Amino acid sequence: MFIILVYDVNEKRVNKVLKTCRKYLNWVQNSVLEGDISDANLKKLKIELSHIINKKEDSVIFYLLRTTKYSKREIMGLEKGGENMFI
Amino acid sequence: MFIILVYDVNEKRVNKVLKTCRKYLNWVQNSVLEGDISDANLKKLKIELSHIINKKEDSVIFYLLRTTKYSKREIMGLEKGGENMFI
Repeated sequence: MFIILVYDVNEKRVNKVLKTCRKYLNWVQNSVLEGDISDANLKKLKIELSHIINKKEDSVIFYLLRTTKYSKREIMGLEKGGENMFI
Repeated sequence: MFIILVYDVNEKRVNKVLKTCRKYLNWVQNSVLEGDISDANLKKLKIELSHIINKKEDSVIFYLLRTTKYSKREIMGLEKGGENMFI
């Protein structure tokens, strides 16, 4: 599965959230990561994040794409992230 | 078409970028918007943004989904945005 993860968390928790997401996904842009991930790893990622974030203050959104066949990514301006796995 | 737009722009231009994106899309979270958009409006949005951003400093990513049939969105924590058009 391909996922796009965007987070909006309190400054105090940004580093921990980012570090955790990076174990499973590629950093794309400020507070955005993406990548292919297995169901098992997605589950792990969610559990780890749920221990870090404050659910009353923070927000993490997962866009889950079963296939990228019907999707594409376009960038305007700088390409900040390193890897480009999206077609 | 359904799009997810994420921006990472210099503070000086954030307000203008956000205001422009909001004309066409729904705000979801800090620097993330999404929504259904026609090809014509997407073209307009891109032209407007290209006049605002500095392509050497800023980055705007468009994830274009021809269908949302194979995608879903999951939120952990707060749901910050108002409208929820994603299934």
